[in-house]
Amino acid sequence: MKRHLLFLAPVFFVLSVVNVKADDPLPSWNDSRAKQEIIAFVTKVTDPNSPDFVSQPERIATFDNDGCLWSEKPVYFQLLFAIDRVKTLAVDHPEWKTQEPFASVLKDDLKAVAASGEKGLMQLIAATHAGMTIEQFSTTVGDWLESTKHPTTGKRFNEMVYQPMLELLEYLRDNGFKTFIVSGGGIEFMRPWAENTYGIPPEQVVGSSLKMKYEVRDGVPVLVKLPEVDLIDDKVGKPVGIQSHIGRRPIFAAGNSDGDFQMLEWTTSGQGARFGLVVHHTDAQREWAYDRDSAVGKLDRALDAAPERGWHVIDMKNDWAKIYP
Amino acid sequence: MKRHLLFLAPVFFVLSVVNVKADDPLPSWNDSRAKQEIIAFVTKVTDPNSPDFVSQPERIATFDNDGCLWSEKPVYFQLLFAIDRVKTLAVDHPEWKTQEPFASVLKDDLKAVAASGEKGLMQLIAATHAGMTIEQFSTTVGDWLESTKHPTTGKRFNEMVYQPMLELLEYLRDNGFKTFIVSGGGIEFMRPWAENTYGIPPEQVVGSSLKMKYEVRDGVPVLVKLPEVDLIDDKVGKPVGIQSHIGRRPIFAAGNSDGDFQMLEWTTSGQGARFGLVVHHTDAQREWAYDRDSAVGKLDRALDAAPERGWHVIDMKNDWAKIYP
Ligand SMILES: [Ca+2]
Ligand SMILES: [Ca+2]
Repeated sequence: MKRHLLFLAPVFFVLSVVNVKADDPLPSWNDSRAKQEIIAFVTKVTDPNSPDFVSQPERIATFDNDGCLWSEKPVYFQLLFAIDRVKTLAVDHPEWKTQEPFASVLKDDLKAVAASGEKGLMQLIAATHAGMTIEQFSTTVGDWLESTKHPTTGKRFNEMVYQPMLELLEYLRDNGFKTFIVSGGGIEFMRPWAENTYGIPPEQVVGSSLKMKYEVRDGVPVLVKLPEVDLIDDKVGKPVGIQSHIGRRPIFAAGNSDGDFQMLEWTTSGQGARFGLVVHHTDAQREWAYDRDSAVGKLDRALDAAPERGWHVIDMKNDWAKIYP
Repeated sequence: MKRHLLFLAPVFFVLSVVNVKADDPLPSWNDSRAKQEIIAFVTKVTDPNSPDFVSQPERIATFDNDGCLWSEKPVYFQLLFAIDRVKTLAVDHPEWKTQEPFASVLKDDLKAVAASGEKGLMQLIAATHAGMTIEQFSTTVGDWLESTKHPTTGKRFNEMVYQPMLELLEYLRDNGFKTFIVSGGGIEFMRPWAENTYGIPPEQVVGSSLKMKYEVRDGVPVLVKLPEVDLIDDKVGKPVGIQSHIGRRPIFAAGNSDGDFQMLEWTTSGQGARFGLVVHHTDAQREWAYDRDSAVGKLDRALDAAPERGWHVIDMKNDWAKIYP
């Protein structure tokens, strides 16, 4: 008898290791209510005997990107990319020395750039993103991510992704969810790295976009980005982007700012079990702490609405054992 | 020994039945060159030892819908839907009695409707599709498909799908391809039935679209279709729709008209193994025969270009053993 048990010991050991992983799909989440609520939701929608069961094709989960999957301070990382592009391209644009918002960019006056508002940002995006082919743009983004470090953390930008959210994405996918990004950021800015970083393929990335033109240049077909907005995938634009790209209403949505209000509203007002998640930046030590008064990632209306609408507010400081991988 | 062989006989029988299916993934295709070329392509891009191997995430296949996956005569089925909608809505629009293209629709003058051209068609689409919420529109399309028969075949429209193409879609998916519709037809017109009919989920349907607006009506969030074109997913619009929704270049594309020229060009000019397929309507007995002079599904430039570009032209009459399921 003893010999038999010894023989089985390695098997039990393997099984118990597997069980630890199965028991805790979210190891970087503290054992607080947030984690329990996520697991309770996933358990009930995937249990065929539950009244809340949702068939696999309907398990659509959408995630905001800036401030929800990766950091967004001191400003959106795509703005840092646009600023670097302005500096690179300035040699061919002497007029930028006196023309806003370019002049402020060249003087490294981030505050004045931010003050130029949405119009200024769109001018920067148009000037630095348009005119390139999709392939050129993708390569430029990839090279920039490879070669550039965050101004204060010194990390690569795609290292400043939230480990608990990576685990959440994988946990949802392991349970038959299809995970999408639905971001105010540029769709073609995210696609080159979202698959490696988040496991989210290009066809599951929804974002703001410029119009495109198809043409054949010297016998070679190209798609060229035009300096004209196609979709601003933010606020009321998020449900529009979701319908356009996905064609069904998500049952799970995660965001971190008032820009996600309508996505959360659209998601959680559907019939059946729904989950709305709001990442609240409360950790000034390990990341940043901000909400109502922040120019980037302002969280005010959605924070007030969360309790009555049943949205789950994640307190980064207390709910997350770890921030970055 | 004999007893052992007898004992194994049912197993061999089962294996050989399985092999027949595995040996012929396209039973409704005749054993002509077209079928052999499709199988040769799929075999080489899925063989890790082949120089033409393509990793699974890059196996993107795009299919036109009208005349490629289902029939399109006497006119696009979506136009028949719009015509039925005009008749239903006419009671609230007395002005349509004298206003083109509505007047011709109400007089059942299909020829005059067709003569109103793209502008007339867009007016019909705008008048009959816009103003509804996405959910209302989806229900209306579903009800119409349930209740309406094709004017000459007497079949339901979603029974007029091509059995050989259904097999091709499944064969590609069985080999790790992700299959998409990329159609000039309306994206929200196709989504309600594409999943059941073709196995293609809403998030893999690309089509022409109207702009949408998100709003909260009496506390209920809705997405409303606006009478304003967002994308005409035809001709140069097809590669744009592909990039916008999929974000990678397909390695396989199928169409049937000059409206697919640019999709075929974009697909087959990429690096590595590519497959362009053109369905040529040559079967006046079992379906319809038309190409260069047809108002619907005109196939002229793409037919001429096929040989030099290596596109595979399917001769419906000779390559397909069966048309409809
Ligand atoms: Ca955000
Ligand atoms: Ca067609």
